This record gives sequence, C-alpha cells and structure tokens, in this order.
Amino acid sequence: MTVRVGYLGPGGTFTEEAMHVYTAGREIYTKVEFSSIPEMIYAIGTKIDEAVVPFENSIEGSVNVTLDLLIHESRAMIKRELVLPVNQNLFVRKLYSLDEIEVVYSHPQALYQCRKFLHERMPKALWIETASTAEAAQIVAGCEKPWAAIGHSRLGELYGLLLIAENIQDYKNNVTRFIILSMEDCAPTGFDRTSVVFATENKPGSLYKVLGFFARENLNLTKIESRPSRKALGEYVFLLEVEGHRQDEVLKKVLAEVEKNTTYFKILGSYPRWQEGYPPLRGDSCKAMKERLRISN
Amino acid sequence: MTVRVGYLGPGGTFTEEAMHVYTAGREIYTKVEFSSIPEMIYAIGTKIDEAVVPFENSIEGSVNVTLDLLIHESRAMIKRELVLPVNQNLFVRKLYSLDEIEVVYSHPQALYQCRKFLHERMPKALWIETASTAEAAQIVAGCEKPWAAIGHSRLGELYGLLLIAENIQDYKNNVTRFIILSMEDCAPTGFDRTSVVFATENKPGSLYKVLGFFARENLNLTKIESRPSRKALGEYVFLLEVEGHRQDEVLKKVLAEVEKNTTYFKILGSYPRWQEGYPPLRGDSCKAMKERLRISN
Repeated sequence: MTVRVGYLGPGGTFTEEAMHVYTAGREIYTKVEFSSIPEMIYAIGTKIDEAVVPFENSIEGSVNVTLDLLIHESRAMIKRELVLPVNQNLFVRKLYSLDEIEVVYSHPQALYQCRKFLHERMPKALWIETASTAEAAQIVAGCEKPWAAIGHSRLGELYGLLLIAENIQDYKNNVTRFIILSMEDCAPTGFDRTSVVFATENKPGSLYKVLGFFARENLNLTKIESRPSRKALGEYVFLLEVEGHRQDEVLKKVLAEVEKNTTYFKILGSYPRWQEGYPPLRGDSCKAMKERLRISN
Repeated sequence: MTVRVGYLGPGGTFTEEAMHVYTAGREIYTKVEFSSIPEMIYAIGTKIDEAVVPFENSIEGSVNVTLDLLIHESRAMIKRELVLPVNQNLFVRKLYSLDEIEVVYSHPQALYQCRKFLHERMPKALWIETASTAEAAQIVAGCEKPWAAIGHSRLGELYGLLLIAENIQDYKNNVTRFIILSMEDCAPTGFDRTSVVFATENKPGSLYKVLGFFARENLNLTKIESRPSRKALGEYVFLLEVEGHRQDEVLKKVLAEVEKNTTYFKILGSYPRWQEGYPPLRGDSCKAMKERLRISN
C-alpha cells in the first residue's frame, strides 16, 4: 500500500522540507506536488490521502488559508504536527557584495522576517515581493543583474545560486508548525493536543463563558485564535487548542459542555504533540527526522 | 498646511481606493506611494504624517503585518477607520471567452475569494499567485496570451484591459476595514471604538480573567485576536477592540484594571466607529465619500 502525500511546490519551499521530514525517505509515500494550499486540501480523500500544510509560524502567526479551509470547507482532520526551524538565507547569481545588491526578491513573510538585516546591511536595496521564496530564486537565477533572493538553504542547490549570507532572519526562534491532514485523526498516545473550532452568540460575555469551562478544569489552552465567520465583519469563529485527547475523560466532558453552549462546533482533530523525535513515526524514520533537524539547525 | 498621506501602490490596489475615499479629493493631502506596508508604517512621523493601511477583511481576517507592526514596532496610533466593499473582477487583454482562458493571475487572497467562480466557470484555468492585484494586471497587459487577472474595477482603465466578468467573489458581503495611522489618535465623538493589545502570564485561565473585567461591565468586545509574542511558539499577544473611548469613565477604569493584570499593555487608539457617511470628515468630503461608496457598490 502506498500513501499519496501532497505538498506545496515548487521545489525548495519550507513546505517541501516539512514533507521530507514527515515521509523521511520511506518508500510507502508517493509525493504529489500542488501549486496552492486550497487545491491540495480539496484533494484529500480523492487525489491524495494526506497533505502537509503550514499551520502557524512563531513570528507570523496562523496560516489563515489553512485554518479557514478547515473551519469552513473541508472535512479533513489533523493527524500529526511537526515543528521545524525556519532559517532565511541570501542568494545571488554571481558574487556581489551586500552593498552592490540593488533588488531583493522574496515572499513577503520572508522579507519581513529579515527586515533588520536588510535595513542595516543593505539599506539601498529595493524589496520586491514574490508569491514564494522559490519564485524569487527563479527570478534571480534568470537574470544577470545585481539581484538577490531570500529563502531556504536548499534554494542554492536547486536554482544554481550562491549563498552569501546565512540565518539572516531577525528572530532566531523562528519556527513553523506544520500539520498533516487526512480523513482521520490519531488515536490517543498519552501526550496529545486537540484542536476545536466554535462560534458563540454575538453578545457580551459569550466567549468568556466558554473559556470558563476550560478554566474550571484547569485545562491548558495552548492556542486561541479568532477567524471571520464570513457572515459579517465583527463576527468570529474561534480556534482553541488544548492539551489532551478528545477521548480523555475530563476533556470529553468539557467539549460536550462547549458544544451545548455554542452555535457552531467542530473538532479538527486530536493528535500527538510535537517533541523533537517524539512521537516516533517509526523507528527508522525517527532517526532520519533527527538527522534532518540537526542539518536544518 | 498639507498632510502627507502614505498609501500602498502601484495604482489600482484596494488600498489606493481607500486613500481616495479618505482624502476625498481635498487639496490638503499630498499622496505618497509606498511599495510595502512596513516601509510605510516606519515612515509615519518622518516622511509622512498619516498612512492608510488595510487592517481586517470580512472573509480573510486581520492583516497580520499591520497588526504586528502596531504591536511590536511602531508608536503610530489609529485615528480613523474606513470600511469599504471589495468587489473582484476578471480582466483580459483581448476578448476571450471564459473557457479559453488558460491562466488566471492575482494576489492569493483575491484568487481565493473567487474560488467557486473559478472552479465552476473556468475549471481548466491554472492559478498563479502574484504579489498584488496590480502586478497581475501588469503581467496580463504585457503578454499576448489567453491569460486573465483578477482585481479592482479600476485595473481595466489603468492597465488597458477588458472587463469580462464583474463581482466574481464568492461572498457578496466582502468588505475590508482600513485604518488611518498617525502619531495621535482621535478625541471622543460619542460613537467610538478603542483598540488595545496586551499579553498575560502563560498559565491556565489568565485570558479568562482579563475578559472578565470587560464582561462584568457589560462592555461589548467587537474583536479579539491573538498574535504571536515572538518569544516562543504558543505565547500570544491579544488584540481586543471594545466599543467606547479610552477617556470614557467606565472603559477608563476597566483598562486600568487590565493594565494592572497583564505583563504587557498598549493602547493602539480610540477613534470614531465607521458608519456610512459618519462621522463626517468635513461637510464636502462626506458627500464625496458617499458618492464613491455608491459607485463601488
């Protein structure tokens, strides 16, 4: 049996890297490239069995398109999470010094993550936003001008570019949390997280009441996020993440209370919490994952 | 005296449209184009006096880059809000039928907002993401191929393109909330909103406690949003928006309580709540604003 796993291309994106960490070179996985997150999520259950998608970054926050598809349109569930470091690097086609570079291309998030470096070391360079870091690399590789691209360390090898500065992001604790989506979530492991979305009546104190159910049981909320209901500006759907599995006794009882007191309620999944090398996906792949993480650091 | 007001170019973006509504053709304003939101926000108080920036969309949610700059880096305050409809339109260089179009270019949010239309009416077209809707129009205008661009109705005139489908967004209640940033917020008008950001101790129930201060006074929270603290994944700064002015007696008392019970606290501003034509910016410009809104609808 093979598992068809979708990832966001082109080659050299951080999502492709996460897919490599997840599949860890195992032959059971067939890789399927997509050019957009929505197309990939719609394909789960038909063209593909699983998808690797970015969910949250420690500097930039939630990836809204992923979250909104899970809230409004998809029946896919979260079966796993991966947390990987994001290191930004500067690439050129020919060897230029930093102050010779006239234009820097990258995805807006990547440019923004390197703002201090760009301001201090390359104050004259113009910033141009691209749809992905890989697209930026393609542009720089295709033109003989003093231009640079910012992105993943693999871009150099993939697009024949020279690395002239490493780890140029302003915040060194820059990590991205990826999730693996599938038609089913994961059985309890004893070290789990549960993601749930709900909407409350639009009146003062209704979110306060729902948070009270968790507070009374001393359950640790690890994330809270509001997203538009899409009905009117100012109406929201909330994402909560809480430690524990939805089949755990206390959490099960709290979630039943939440469901009774909300106008919309949906469990996105219970799945093992990320720890480096834990939970082992399989003996061999766990080692491979650690290897890769060491390389990325 | 002139007021130098920054907006996000190139011509034909929704932000430029919002700047036109705000300045309403008055000669007091000098327009200054920027190519990125961070550059514009950093320039407030030096190169420019005010800036028009997108803050929230009814379908896509908060504009994270704007929110994060206000939380972490800028001392600019919110002095006004504008809520404008977002209508997406399909443009081509020569007259093609929908099923002849091979590629559709646009900003990822615009593509995503028109997903159902694209799937049903142009199922074979490939989607390519660009940095702005205006960039998509430039690409389509520059190449004799069966390509299309999605964006604001003014793109046709600006880039010499033909409009072949109007209002193609999936959700008809698609509006964007823009804010005007300046070094000062606004005096009380009796119909105000206050935006505040804070961080709590990272332990169960601490957000619950802060929301309780507002709930006890029956104050209406119009928005709650979490953003990364940038210290570690899973630590957040919260944005709350509440009806009232920070100088109103009850709200002033509640905000003082919130400040005492949080580890970080900052008021982003108190400013008049948006209503069509209210508050009048000035007699003449209010009429101009209504004219423009009628046209956009």
